[in-house]
Amino acid sequence: MERVLVTGIEPFDGDDVNPSWQVAQALAGERIAGAEVVVRELACVLGRSNQQLIAAIEELHPVAVICLGLAGGRGEISVERVAVNLIDARIPDNAGKQPIDVPVVEGGPVGYFATLPVKAIVHHLRRQGIPAAVSHTAGTYNCNQLFYGLSHHIASHHLAIKGGFIHIPYSHELAVNHPGKPSMALATMIEAVRSIVHTTLTNEEDLAIGGGALH
Amino acid sequence: MERVLVTGIEPFDGDDVNPSWQVAQALAGERIAGAEVVVRELACVLGRSNQQLIAAIEELHPVAVICLGLAGGRGEISVERVAVNLIDARIPDNAGKQPIDVPVVEGGPVGYFATLPVKAIVHHLRRQGIPAAVSHTAGTYNCNQLFYGLSHHIASHHLAIKGGFIHIPYSHELAVNHPGKPSMALATMIEAVRSIVHTTLTNEEDLAIGGGALH
Amino acid sequence: MERVLVTGIEPFDGDDVNPSWQVAQALAGERIAGAEVVVRELACVLGRSNQQLIAAIEELHPVAVICLGLAGGRGEISVERVAVNLIDARIPDNAGKQPIDVPVVEGGPVGYFATLPVKAIVHHLRRQGIPAAVSHTAGTYNCNQLFYGLSHHIASHHLAIKGGFIHIPYSHELAVNHPGKPSMALATMIEAVRSIVHTTLTNEEDLAIGGGALH
Amino acid sequence: MERVLVTGIEPFDGDDVNPSWQVAQALAGERIAGAEVVVRELACVLGRSNQQLIAAIEELHPVAVICLGLAGGRGEISVERVAVNLIDARIPDNAGKQPIDVPVVEGGPVGYFATLPVKAIVHHLRRQGIPAAVSHTAGTYNCNQLFYGLSHHIASHHLAIKGGFIHIPYSHELAVNHPGKPSMALATMIEAVRSIVHTTLTNEEDLAIGGGALH
Repeated sequence: MERVLVTGIEPFDGDDVNPSWQVAQALAGERIAGAEVVVRELACVLGRSNQQLIAAIEELHPVAVICLGLAGGRGEISVERVAVNLIDARIPDNAGKQPIDVPVVEGGPVGYFATLPVKAIVHHLRRQGIPAAVSHTAGTYNCNQLFYGLSHHIASHHLAIKGGFIHIPYSHELAVNHPGKPSMALATMIEAVRSIVHTTLTNEEDLAIGGGALH
Repeated sequence: MERVLVTGIEPFDGDDVNPSWQVAQALAGERIAGAEVVVRELACVLGRSNQQLIAAIEELHPVAVICLGLAGGRGEISVERVAVNLIDARIPDNAGKQPIDVPVVEGGPVGYFATLPVKAIVHHLRRQGIPAAVSHTAGTYNCNQLFYGLSHHIASHHLAIKGGFIHIPYSHELAVNHPGKPSMALATMIEAVRSIVHTTLTNEEDLAIGGGALH
Repeated sequence: MERVLVTGIEPFDGDDVNPSWQVAQALAGERIAGAEVVVRELACVLGRSNQQLIAAIEELHPVAVICLGLAGGRGEISVERVAVNLIDARIPDNAGKQPIDVPVVEGGPVGYFATLPVKAIVHHLRRQGIPAAVSHTAGTYNCNQLFYGLSHHIASHHLAIKGGFIHIPYSHELAVNHPGKPSMALATMIEAVRSIVHTTLTNEEDLAIGGGALH
Repeated sequence: MERVLVTGIEPFDGDDVNPSWQVAQALAGERIAGAEVVVRELACVLGRSNQQLIAAIEELHPVAVICLGLAGGRGEISVERVAVNLIDARIPDNAGKQPIDVPVVEGGPVGYFATLPVKAIVHHLRRQGIPAAVSHTAGTYNCNQLFYGLSHHIASHHLAIKGGFIHIPYSHELAVNHPGKPSMALATMIEAVRSIVHTTLTNEEDLAIGGGALH
């Protein structure tokens, strides 16, 4: 049976849990649109997380890869569209390293667009009553690094994998420790990623509908 | 059996639903801490909503009254602490009226504090993993009017009712039409109000813990 | 000559300066609408600041009192409308005290409305191209305490003083240390308070125009 | 004498003025670090604005190009770091066109990094007391299109021009019509762009200091 790889990230920046991994875990073993969901927890360690991701792809030969990460402060499911070849760490990673202005891949192109159907994903999420938007920056930390590393791996090995990155809000549970920040129920986020996997596997072409930002 | 009155408000400002009423409805008939939850939907019509609320109190003789309202744009459960004797409508109500700078009750005092244990309520919500905070303004529209009207009725009739107002965020479903706004799962908000009713009925005294705002 | 008292507050919460005092200082000695501006710097110490304010009023016999305070995170000039009889300190004051849930004035009423023409003030500020709005909460810390203390002094002594509280944003200079927070030029804030003093002294009646909040 | 080209954009989306052009205009003819500032107002018309910009570069042979644009809702000077080859118009441009998901340059690379010393620019702005930050998305509308078009022109013609895009907040004047949005004094923004031009002309190398985003 075909496999979809869904990854989450370990806790970082003082949090006890990372909802990106909680959501991935909840989907482990599910069958969506004829494919089995296989999950992996990646480190919040620059470099190492990318190696873990690529090792999982080489082991599992998935048809699609959906990486999840936490974007504390955002209030919607963010479907990332642009990965950039830049690491500029605002805080140290879980190994204590804080690189500034180094590329994810030496000599790689400046950017990649997600190969996911980002507009179709947002369209279907909203139809299901789940707040979602296309995002044009995944930051310059571990999440963008994974997104760029994934995109570069797919492009440079000419793989037919659909791959991209989804940022999720704080869970309600986690937001208790971040007063004033928006949050989303874990159950809603699990339903959202289920929908994202389904749309990814069933939409050959993306929808030509608006999702832009004025700035 | 003792009764707790939980009220929601009808849709307004172009929305199709009002999650405050969806949440109240979901709790109808439940027994919490030995009391039965009775629910009412109130109009988004200044004056009329207050009459509906007071009529329901006179009919039901509840031991506690928890009024719910929608605060689109807030990301947490807001436990209102201060009701003010002021209506200053930013938009017309559902009857097309938009009064500016009139009192809720002619000759009434400037303000009332909620008689709910607001700190204990927030404390228990957070322990359950639900983002919540004390709020010091319920606005100057239908919600504040209900909160003031309720408080004035309790005070002027010397009733032993615990009463107050809870603002809830957009539901995830509603936030789809309000891009960029924070939202909360209906299921979480239902659990929150269940907790609020329980804390209200079981806490004789409020907790002396912080919940203030610098400005 | 008649006097207007304009007060600012000393730095607090780790900041080196408090723009509320910088703005007040800049107006010292100006003549506005026939009155002289006299300024005072108040402590960020609960209780003491109120005593300083009342002592200044008893010394100066001003026709109007405009208290200024910093509301880091707000982006507009905030004309406060409601003072409440509550201190609930989120952080310790500059004397290290952090009272929770105590009244500003034992036995005082729950609230006071500003005696400033709040709508006219906002109207004139906007006409001058200065972002401004009526606010319905001044928090539960030193600023609200000053606002309530001033209002109670005026009311209980039957003084013909117009008095109120204005919250200002971070100055651009201060916002450098608070990344992502909105800010306003000191020059604009000085112009704003000059306008506020003028409107206060020249408007017998407030304007009946909207300034409300939905929640 | 060497020239620096500073561009602003005409009003759009219902505003009467565009502070990006007001700021550029204010600097016209100034000499900064030995170069003369030449300014141009560009259309808010996709395609046409890019042609205007490139025509100005070919006419003026500037040593540096600083394009300014309005980012209503941001509170700081935003120094853009990443241009992407994507137009996805959320609203129609001033010619009524609203293209979705088309490249700025057919066959161009996905992205370009600014050739401005973005970290040094932010560093010097903050030292002058002006709130500023590096940004990793300039949106998908006219501003990003100009930024990408400029970057592609520089790269494909192997020009030694330093070029980039600066997003500025609403002016205080404009924010009056956008209640609740942060804003900045025109005078501060003029000072900011003066500083940006100076840093661009005098810093051969960028500073290796943090400016990243977690997401």
